[in-house]
Amino acid sequence: MSSVMAGIFQRSVKLRTVLRHQRLHRTFSSRKTARLSAVGLCGSFHKLPSGSWQFGATCQKLHTVADGPKPSAAEAPDRLPFSRVTQEDLAFFRKTLLGRAITDSDFLESSNVDWLKSVKGSSEVLLRPQNTKEVSQVLRYCNSRNLAVTPQGGNTGLVGGSVPVYDEIILSTALMNNILAFDNISGILTCQAGCVLENLSLYLEERDYIMPLDLGAKGSCQIGGNVATNAGGLRLLRYGSLHGTVLGLEVVLADGRVLDCLSTLRKDNTGYDLKQLFIGSEGTLGVITAVSILCPRKPKSVNLVFLGCETFEQLLKTFQLCRGMLGEILSAFEFLDSECMRLLNTHLKLPNPISDCPFYIVIETSGSNPTHDGQKLHNFLEEAMTSSLVTDGTVATEESKIKALWSMRERITEALTHDGFNYKYDISLPVERIYQLVTDMREHLGDQAKSVVGYGHIGDGNLHLNITSPAKDPALLGAIEPFVYEWTARCKGSISAEHGLGLKKRNYIYYSKSSQAVALMGNIKAILDPKGILNPYKTLPDALK
Amino acid sequence: MSSVMAGIFQRSVKLRTVLRHQRLHRTFSSRKTARLSAVGLCGSFHKLPSGSWQFGATCQKLHTVADGPKPSAAEAPDRLPFSRVTQEDLAFFRKTLLGRAITDSDFLESSNVDWLKSVKGSSEVLLRPQNTKEVSQVLRYCNSRNLAVTPQGGNTGLVGGSVPVYDEIILSTALMNNILAFDNISGILTCQAGCVLENLSLYLEERDYIMPLDLGAKGSCQIGGNVATNAGGLRLLRYGSLHGTVLGLEVVLADGRVLDCLSTLRKDNTGYDLKQLFIGSEGTLGVITAVSILCPRKPKSVNLVFLGCETFEQLLKTFQLCRGMLGEILSAFEFLDSECMRLLNTHLKLPNPISDCPFYIVIETSGSNPTHDGQKLHNFLEEAMTSSLVTDGTVATEESKIKALWSMRERITEALTHDGFNYKYDISLPVERIYQLVTDMREHLGDQAKSVVGYGHIGDGNLHLNITSPAKDPALLGAIEPFVYEWTARCKGSISAEHGLGLKKRNYIYYSKSSQAVALMGNIKAILDPKGILNPYKTLPDALK
Repeated sequence: MSSVMAGIFQRSVKLRTVLRHQRLHRTFSSRKTARLSAVGLCGSFHKLPSGSWQFGATCQKLHTVADGPKPSAAEAPDRLPFSRVTQEDLAFFRKTLLGRAITDSDFLESSNVDWLKSVKGSSEVLLRPQNTKEVSQVLRYCNSRNLAVTPQGGNTGLVGGSVPVYDEIILSTALMNNILAFDNISGILTCQAGCVLENLSLYLEERDYIMPLDLGAKGSCQIGGNVATNAGGLRLLRYGSLHGTVLGLEVVLADGRVLDCLSTLRKDNTGYDLKQLFIGSEGTLGVITAVSILCPRKPKSVNLVFLGCETFEQLLKTFQLCRGMLGEILSAFEFLDSECMRLLNTHLKLPNPISDCPFYIVIETSGSNPTHDGQKLHNFLEEAMTSSLVTDGTVATEESKIKALWSMRERITEALTHDGFNYKYDISLPVERIYQLVTDMREHLGDQAKSVVGYGHIGDGNLHLNITSPAKDPALLGAIEPFVYEWTARCKGSISAEHGLGLKKRNYIYYSKSSQAVALMGNIKAILDPKGILNPYKTLPDALK
Repeated sequence: MSSVMAGIFQRSVKLRTVLRHQRLHRTFSSRKTARLSAVGLCGSFHKLPSGSWQFGATCQKLHTVADGPKPSAAEAPDRLPFSRVTQEDLAFFRKTLLGRAITDSDFLESSNVDWLKSVKGSSEVLLRPQNTKEVSQVLRYCNSRNLAVTPQGGNTGLVGGSVPVYDEIILSTALMNNILAFDNISGILTCQAGCVLENLSLYLEERDYIMPLDLGAKGSCQIGGNVATNAGGLRLLRYGSLHGTVLGLEVVLADGRVLDCLSTLRKDNTGYDLKQLFIGSEGTLGVITAVSILCPRKPKSVNLVFLGCETFEQLLKTFQLCRGMLGEILSAFEFLDSECMRLLNTHLKLPNPISDCPFYIVIETSGSNPTHDGQKLHNFLEEAMTSSLVTDGTVATEESKIKALWSMRERITEALTHDGFNYKYDISLPVERIYQLVTDMREHLGDQAKSVVGYGHIGDGNLHLNITSPAKDPALLGAIEPFVYEWTARCKGSISAEHGLGLKKRNYIYYSKSSQAVALMGNIKAILDPKGILNPYKTLPDALK
């Protein structure tokens, strides 16, 4: 099939060869290593028993936070009057967790700082429970002592949601990494919250299933964190959001009560669907300790196409054509602009796999019949080329080549970190307005910004708008915000499509949610966490607290 | 393709011909008429401006409720101390709604009784607002006056959730039936809550889209009611639950405040996803006034297969084979047992389209390429026949024949109503346990029951267990319950997969939900509806109120 499809490009434009893919692939280091090194966390790290990667106490680069952009204290409200951790508290934690109450400052440092090194807390204790009972004991104690707690999964979030702001106790789910059950008939997986997404994917692939979500951060992020942040990612177009695929949750509430909603049923209409409240609540309503999730069958055939377009209008027309002709096998439709390609070329030395174009598209198909999928893809590409919607392209069907092409989309975040200080925006918009925001922002900022780039999930109407500058630049920030939020609100978009609000965006919630809705969120928070000990300073605006 | 696939059956078993389908189809009246007549509501009815069907004031059969099974007062708790409607209240409603505050007793009667004639209220006023503002005005008034309100959509529910228990004011959404917007690129539909599901389907089909849900009651049920009850139906296997496909809701709260969560975005992670609370809350938390929903593309090719199996184990193996070989084009996998077939034959004169078997399967495929779909289906059927998983079958590719075959599944409810008094159970179970409950119940009841039948959505693990008797039979009920609920709870199933709890099952919630979870539901109810005026006596157990 590859050669049939390649033929289309051969006739229309120059053919990108397998050799090119191989060269591409050789230039890539493994995604996990690459991602880690990209943020300067390239010191020693080791694999924990949980299967996740943990930075070691000797990791030199971690001590260089002070050299990079400073954590912005101004962004955080004043510390709330929570208790401070005492020796008695530590004694309780040590007794309860037996060697898993960490106070070593080197170890703590990596948990105190976020992936982007943009928020840094000063927690003095990291708790690593292994089971729900321990989480319950810890939270009951903290609630009674009025000690604030920040739940932490893989700490891969982009809005400062998973690190303490002050001295909140860090409650890591990393050691809660057991798969509890998998039903091979229904495809329903039940596991502890600390399972790393990539480990779950590998487990399922051996059983002919896949996870319904896939993220660039898969090597570090944990399923509990994915659910707590309602992670979107690359497969949402096909398999829908976690609100649909998560079937059950076990959650420990702020006072230590265990809320068992860990259903493994596809359908259950007995009362209100409480688990939904915790999906996307960023650890502010409870600590997710276990998840059951509906997993799709592993596709027998996966193809990846990388295409070039002259205009965004043509890109949208290609999307429409693609949805009609690829139909049920379409599993991703992503885009990046030429500025993204420039950063990939410049900072990561990734060569453009096709000729230079203003816009690039990544299309993935997943299906049950390689011949049928190949024919559908062939027909689509022929139509797209004949009608001049796309001007160049290349196709990959082998796994290594698919991974190489995917990197052109997945490694943009990494390329951006090399370009300077990042101002990151994750916007939902009606799909036809998506790129206008990038164009308007470029015009609005003029020479103030180093780079203004747009990429994201066309299929989901989700733009990742990123602006870089040589260093943190309050004047630039003042030019970007509230411009970007007001622009989004005018289009009835969302100021956070999939990243959440965390610490950084909590006060901008009103651009996307009505005051009635935000007030109701506050009421729900008050029911579930009356003392407000869970992940304070996050998600809800300061005025509400 | 039809002939290719038919060939498989020709080789293996006798071929069911197109003529047979045509004969079948002729014996069917339209599904809508059939459904209505099935419950004795066959008097005059007329189409409302909303497009839904309303029974006329002259509908004779409605007055026969007293002859049928009596509304069970014992099932309802005592009337709560709500105010009673006064002349001043009526004057307010008449002024606010201008001719749409109905007090005519004949008209009221049809709204006071449920579809199964199993619950009958005594409301003296039916309010028919046309827009959100009117709903808000009415609820603000009712809340201040402590008047109880039952929201009502198409009144097609099976658990007594959509009719008053005592004199609650009926708030009908039937006149709120406007489509507000449809985005042809994203497939996102926004409409008022009273739009009838079938009308929405017809609207979308003209635009090359379909609704993500389909129900037997589509001709009467309304989208607001569908969302309020988290309706499942025939397409859930493919397109997932409403928790995933509903993108936004507008809801009027008990005190008249309008909660605007009517997002039309696929992704929005700004705060808690409040709309989820109202999906499946059965009108107890707020009145849904508008819905936005993500609609799939209309498939270019639909096939229906009706198969026969000797054992339930073979049926499950067929399901597994089917998921693997039909993959992404599988859109429904339903089953019925031979007892269902007997009732269809006896009461509706529907002939068995294949030879007699203990179990029957209905498989639907929906795809974008008729040739590919046909090949996949052919390969699957060949494998299923060769390996003797199925013993007989017939295939339909034309719309009329597809509808005829679908009726064998969709009209079972109707056939049951002709068999006597119905005890209906809607159970979620691990798929491999589904039929054991039917077998055990048959053995448990012995001669006490007239019929014990099982059918439902294999793909979703959802069994519809129905037991009939010549008339209402408290002794039989005592033998069924709590046996059925205890059996389900032992398997960690749900005692209501898709029907909800309504009035009839509210007190059985603890079989599927923990006391912690139910208590939290009560807290949420208290926040949103402190006076408890919205759909009292429903969903939550009496002990909680």
